[in-house]
Amino acid sequence: MRPLVVVNVAMSADGKISTRERRQVRISGAIDRARVDRLKAESDAIMVGIGTVLADNPSLTVKSSELREQRVKKGLEENPIRIVVDSLARTPPDADILHKGRGSRIIAISDKADSKAVKALTRHAEVIRAGSEEVDLRELLEKLGDRRIHCLMVEGGGRLIGALFRTHLVDELYTYVGNIVIGGDGSPTPSDGPGFLREEEFVHLHLVETSSLEEGVLIHWRVEKK
Amino acid sequence: MRPLVVVNVAMSADGKISTRERRQVRISGAIDRARVDRLKAESDAIMVGIGTVLADNPSLTVKSSELREQRVKKGLEENPIRIVVDSLARTPPDADILHKGRGSRIIAISDKADSKAVKALTRHAEVIRAGSEEVDLRELLEKLGDRRIHCLMVEGGGRLIGALFRTHLVDELYTYVGNIVIGGDGSPTPSDGPGFLREEEFVHLHLVETSSLEEGVLIHWRVEKK
Repeated sequence: MRPLVVVNVAMSADGKISTRERRQVRISGAIDRARVDRLKAESDAIMVGIGTVLADNPSLTVKSSELREQRVKKGLEENPIRIVVDSLARTPPDADILHKGRGSRIIAISDKADSKAVKALTRHAEVIRAGSEEVDLRELLEKLGDRRIHCLMVEGGGRLIGALFRTHLVDELYTYVGNIVIGGDGSPTPSDGPGFLREEEFVHLHLVETSSLEEGVLIHWRVEKK
Repeated sequence: MRPLVVVNVAMSADGKISTRERRQVRISGAIDRARVDRLKAESDAIMVGIGTVLADNPSLTVKSSELREQRVKKGLEENPIRIVVDSLARTPPDADILHKGRGSRIIAISDKADSKAVKALTRHAEVIRAGSEEVDLRELLEKLGDRRIHCLMVEGGGRLIGALFRTHLVDELYTYVGNIVIGGDGSPTPSDGPGFLREEEFVHLHLVETSSLEEGVLIHWRVEKK
């Protein structure tokens, strides 16, 4: 059984997650980042796309030492399993996600990945193959479910989230709407890729809760199942 | 003195205002549309960009007959002055905005506009010239202020709103976040165009109020003045 997929994303008031140069932007404040850290600490695994690894080089560790200790007390690793969706195995072998903090890593690749690059990554992470041209997300999630990953948090970027929405694999969505305007028709958004064209295709959401948080607005959605 | 500029926009949960084919999408429900109608009825003028006219052919009239009557009782025209920002005078002479409902229209053009096209439009609207290559929004707004337009509502599209943010001409922003995911890195967003690249350039907002409304979330922002 595939894990529950919880997407968390911070966007500007005009729906951008970074500038058109993909420069990392601070959209939310300390309280929201603490919320995200808790969500991460409560997840079995945290997933990003290769675009985010190349643009931001995140470590995806749990930032609060208290939350890490709580995980250890429960018999868990300090950090949730960190997963990169990386069809072509382009994760740099020196990426922070492979080196910073304790815990397991998974790189999900497709058959198109260069075998030398894959070999280099196996020194730092488990490599899961799913899909021929690009990672088959449904197959990957089934494989993650087999590894007892029940709750998977997705932090971005827009292309991975867009692909998860297109394949109807998202269960919950937290959106923090920050008090800035970034603009730009080339700026990444929470759900990129080809997108939907007809209303019948749109993913429908149920509003669970919304509240103002620091200078912005936090929205919690549940995906309506078709 | 330029008018107060109030932008109203409805976007999907992932920050899109329509599909990548620019097909008009119903994002908000009847209660939000009534709110927008009131906002419109309370404005001296309502403005859209030529992209919106070509894509959606809106009439921009006040929908509620009660609100129209209230305007008439106050000695106003039934509808606020309808304005198209149309650098090249591409508004089709049979566009609904020029024919549906009573009231004045203004087409704002630049020096680049074809004189024949301009002449055709003068039969249906006042034509205001501002800017050489494209409409100079600051100059246009000054000219609208001279015409006693004190409160200007902007309904879109993303390129016009983006240009207004870039030139620091927006005072307030209402964003309705609807319960759908549209996706698509080519889909129009609330603020398109080149966008900002550096954090110092971002427009900063102050959260006035937020509330859940029907199936989505309404956010009212005020633009922080630099």
